[in-house]
Amino acid sequence: MKGKPLILVTNDDGISAPGIRTLISVMNEIGNVVVVAPDSPQSAMGHAITINSTLQCHKIKIDDGPQIEYSCSGTPADCVKLGINEILKKKPDLCVSGINHGSNSSINVIYSGTMSAAIEASIGGVPAIGFSLLDYSWKADFSGIKNIIKNITLKSLSNGIPEGTALNVNFPKMKEKAIKGIKICNQANAYWIEKFDKRINPQGREYYWLTGEFINNDKSIKSDEWALNNGFVSIVPVKFDLTNHEVIEKIKSWNL
Amino acid sequence: MKGKPLILVTNDDGISAPGIRTLISVMNEIGNVVVVAPDSPQSAMGHAITINSTLQCHKIKIDDGPQIEYSCSGTPADCVKLGINEILKKKPDLCVSGINHGSNSSINVIYSGTMSAAIEASIGGVPAIGFSLLDYSWKADFSGIKNIIKNITLKSLSNGIPEGTALNVNFPKMKEKAIKGIKICNQANAYWIEKFDKRINPQGREYYWLTGEFINNDKSIKSDEWALNNGFVSIVPVKFDLTNHEVIEKIKSWNL
Repeated sequence: MKGKPLILVTNDDGISAPGIRTLISVMNEIGNVVVVAPDSPQSAMGHAITINSTLQCHKIKIDDGPQIEYSCSGTPADCVKLGINEILKKKPDLCVSGINHGSNSSINVIYSGTMSAAIEASIGGVPAIGFSLLDYSWKADFSGIKNIIKNITLKSLSNGIPEGTALNVNFPKMKEKAIKGIKICNQANAYWIEKFDKRINPQGREYYWLTGEFINNDKSIKSDEWALNNGFVSIVPVKFDLTNHEVIEKIKSWNL
Repeated sequence: MKGKPLILVTNDDGISAPGIRTLISVMNEIGNVVVVAPDSPQSAMGHAITINSTLQCHKIKIDDGPQIEYSCSGTPADCVKLGINEILKKKPDLCVSGINHGSNSSINVIYSGTMSAAIEASIGGVPAIGFSLLDYSWKADFSGIKNIIKNITLKSLSNGIPEGTALNVNFPKMKEKAIKGIKICNQANAYWIEKFDKRINPQGREYYWLTGEFINNDKSIKSDEWALNNGFVSIVPVKFDLTNHEVIEKIKSWNL
């Protein structure tokens, strides 16, 4: 690419979240930044897109800096579609999503708006990275991971993320100096056992809150959960071809 | 399993959609059916789940038949979580989702509420199948595919769907006798080029409708698009491990 890279920034916690403000400040050191992000929190939206309703999108100024910003009424995947196909005049060199307030490791990648935005970019042929910190607090301290995010982003731009792939980067919640390094990992084979907290509303009707317990039976040292539990940053390359190629011959043998 | 299988039925078009009514009628011929489905259309919701709001779920009777039915305020993935973890007293032997009014082949699997429900079941260790007909009409004719759905379901129960896998079954829009057979396929490497239809609301503000053009550059005869375009039912086994294993060594060579 000639000159500074064009970088599209989005997230799922909303355009004013501390995580995306940190990510914008890092990307301003690397390239020309355009932000297209949700106007409200969109956590756990998965790969939802808006087809039965309209989208609003308008220019906004949240804080200082050279970035150009748009606030959008849609989901994270909508924001990426709008950014690439409507707002930007040329294809971005990179799309970054986050920094998410909370983990998107292992099975969480499936439910994650942050990662769906990155995957949507990769479907559109744009190299993409999702960043998440294992701290759900709105006051999470992102300062200690800025250097690592810059390093991963620069290396991604210089090496080129393989086509059809987005990087799922998760940071353990610890001081910068305590981080042992970076591991390229598999998605751990973990899941949630859901527990529904049943309550009664003032009108006497039942309702539920979804809660759950995270179960990780994957003991492999190649998994992202192992890396994070042992003080490493995890990077899982993710793809949008969901085909389970390994079982095709088996199902063919059913003679349907 | 002893006796009739316990089958959880859901969809994304809503509990009163003709597609799910057809699917229930077929499943009633095979097992004991419990329906937990959205109370309103949830198309293109991807793998969204409800974590920042409450869920309502109540027993309902839509039409005749032995099935037990629950209408739920959440997404398709919420319905499956509620069904497996709260409503059913034992783990179902199978979860079926659909019949979707419209295609969930190739990249559409990513955005599909129908398939996210099936994938959610497979994460929870329940064998699962999503069924979709390539006809978006509310008046789509599902009668011609009932026999094939029954056959696929019975073969899935007797052979056992491989663990961690859900089947993505799509039917071409044609008469039953014209269908040439069933192909076990790869997800085609296709995508949407989005076009945003920009309009002005009565208050003078811009808004957008998402529209798009489907682009399929995948000419492989192993792809689901090829099968559907050539008169076959397509079955793609899908998994929830999104790791792109093939590029892990390449990214390790970046020496991050």
